[in-house]
Amino acid sequence: MSVPLPSNRPAVDAPPIALDAMGGDHAPEEIVSGALLAVREHGLRPVLVGRRPEITTLLTEQGGAGEVPVVHAEETLAMHEGALASWRRPRSSVAVACKLIRRGDASALVSAGSTGGVVATSTVRLRTQAGVMRPALAVTLPTQPRPTVLVDAGANADVKPEMLVQFAHMGAAYAHVAHGVAEPRVGMLTIGSEPGKGNKLTRKATELIAGTPAGPPKLDFQGNIEGHDLLTGAVDVVVTDGFTGNVALKTVEGTARFVFDAVRDSLTSSTLAKAGAVLQRKPLRELRSRFDSESYGGGVLLGLNGGVVTAHGSTHAAGIARACALAHELAGGRITEHIRRRINASNRAPGWRPRRSHQEEQRSAPVGEE
Amino acid sequence: MSVPLPSNRPAVDAPPIALDAMGGDHAPEEIVSGALLAVREHGLRPVLVGRRPEITTLLTEQGGAGEVPVVHAEETLAMHEGALASWRRPRSSVAVACKLIRRGDASALVSAGSTGGVVATSTVRLRTQAGVMRPALAVTLPTQPRPTVLVDAGANADVKPEMLVQFAHMGAAYAHVAHGVAEPRVGMLTIGSEPGKGNKLTRKATELIAGTPAGPPKLDFQGNIEGHDLLTGAVDVVVTDGFTGNVALKTVEGTARFVFDAVRDSLTSSTLAKAGAVLQRKPLRELRSRFDSESYGGGVLLGLNGGVVTAHGSTHAAGIARACALAHELAGGRITEHIRRRINASNRAPGWRPRRSHQEEQRSAPVGEE
Repeated sequence: MSVPLPSNRPAVDAPPIALDAMGGDHAPEEIVSGALLAVREHGLRPVLVGRRPEITTLLTEQGGAGEVPVVHAEETLAMHEGALASWRRPRSSVAVACKLIRRGDASALVSAGSTGGVVATSTVRLRTQAGVMRPALAVTLPTQPRPTVLVDAGANADVKPEMLVQFAHMGAAYAHVAHGVAEPRVGMLTIGSEPGKGNKLTRKATELIAGTPAGPPKLDFQGNIEGHDLLTGAVDVVVTDGFTGNVALKTVEGTARFVFDAVRDSLTSSTLAKAGAVLQRKPLRELRSRFDSESYGGGVLLGLNGGVVTAHGSTHAAGIARACALAHELAGGRITEHIRRRINASNRAPGWRPRRSHQEEQRSAPVGEE
Repeated sequence: MSVPLPSNRPAVDAPPIALDAMGGDHAPEEIVSGALLAVREHGLRPVLVGRRPEITTLLTEQGGAGEVPVVHAEETLAMHEGALASWRRPRSSVAVACKLIRRGDASALVSAGSTGGVVATSTVRLRTQAGVMRPALAVTLPTQPRPTVLVDAGANADVKPEMLVQFAHMGAAYAHVAHGVAEPRVGMLTIGSEPGKGNKLTRKATELIAGTPAGPPKLDFQGNIEGHDLLTGAVDVVVTDGFTGNVALKTVEGTARFVFDAVRDSLTSSTLAKAGAVLQRKPLRELRSRFDSESYGGGVLLGLNGGVVTAHGSTHAAGIARACALAHELAGGRITEHIRRRINASNRAPGWRPRRSHQEEQRSAPVGEE
């Protein structure tokens, strides 16, 4: 590729973040507010992509006229639109944002739109990095003292063992760049902690990882981990297929919500307990916010030619600004470069069977306007 | 089969529960105590299976000499032993307990031994019911007002779509017999709630279920559910493969533990909050016990010629007694008969491709002494 990737430039010179103004439950109002917060509180330079008249009016209303550049995009991906939307709407705000990245006019994309639509659109329009079979969605779990990366959290429902190996390397690159972990410990999410336990997919992937050369860059593979280890910080990166990962992620969210509600009910179940609860509103509220999806940002799509951060649909301005900061950090930390080096090393492993990349499989499919 | 199945007899005449005295972290002491509790508090008639001298001594020490019959078994399945153990140890306490069931001398098995070992041993020795492809492990999640059945929670790491259909029917039979739900609502655990979302496995299984005749017995299929619905009581039975189910179950347990610990830490983080916490010890403790694995019993292996209840390895006497009560209830409620009727109906569905049962696949494998 002749044009250097934007995300490989130093952070200070990096092109702006392309922020999808039209995606999310509270778009475009909260996205515009988030863009202004990103400028004012994080010192970033986002570009809003979407319907210019609406965005300009909102910027003026919010006292930020001219503070954030706007790139016009006629169409919007609806929240229920999935993979096919990417071909159907070449002028959607997400598609236009991807075009900015390909031209070098933006360093990364942030969107609170439908994850399915954003993943499909950006995969087709940014394309996977050389040697990467599938992009994978990484999310961070709120472990202490540092977060745990779960990858893939839902981009790929059906995968091959080789893809899990790549997810391990991409997750390690992410933990390195986003969380500053020099040699991330990587675990395979499966059933049973002993070697040889699991299903066919995880057993084969584990075998392939064991056959990977020692590095550099090194993959510190810790073997199997189980569901109850997700929040213990036992590893820095949890590798899994997108089906299991998405079920696990939503199970964490649902269980946390269930326990918080049960604690609240039980703390107000008697007069005595109620008296105690008054004294504890603040710490409990702070704790709950740690589990709030907005606090720990959205997902990051790894393995494309450009950073893609997907925020939850319900995200408000503060979460959008944080997502922009994360996208900026990934681009400045040259995440694509880190992934390229790791994937190159792992693809040279003995016993590695090359599989067709997403592009090769989709080559005959309609890709829409470029 | 010429001998009527014990579990089809009325509860009052049912043969006793065969209780594995040698399985579990606290065996045989806590198992013997549990047997005495089952007699004294639940009015049950268990039989202890294991090393007679040890068990007799313990019964005497605990003031219950002669109160519980003992059947001798020389060997024990070690906690780390898996599937192969079933062939290697034909004289293990679990194998001997299965023999009692096959002879009609016991109505069901209760064991706190290694789940892998108990599943493998009982599958080989009790065999699957006619038409059942694989036995499945059902566990109950602590939802209100009634528990939710998760099936398969770990018996089958790699499954076919047809097996998921059978798990749905077996789970419905369990919800009917154990929780008194006349027409259990059944959901498929997957990613994305819209029809057509999920992986290849769940999409195909959903198609097959949609093609099942309306009944009787009716399967009230509610379509897709996601990880965050596991604890909302949205359905009575959650169907999934044993890999995803085991990851989800352990994720629920791990997240609940994580949140409880975080709540405890946050409630004692300041002097004011600490004062409040004192008033709330009791409700919090009660709440936590709802999540304690011992409170909601262990798993139940469905689809074999006889009931099998697997308690957690860490279970103490009270949990063992409750597991015996559950086994008694399943046998008395004729769980195998309910499963038989449902499986027969589902196997007549159009588009159903018969698959080889576990026995047919294992026919050439060594089965050990019978």
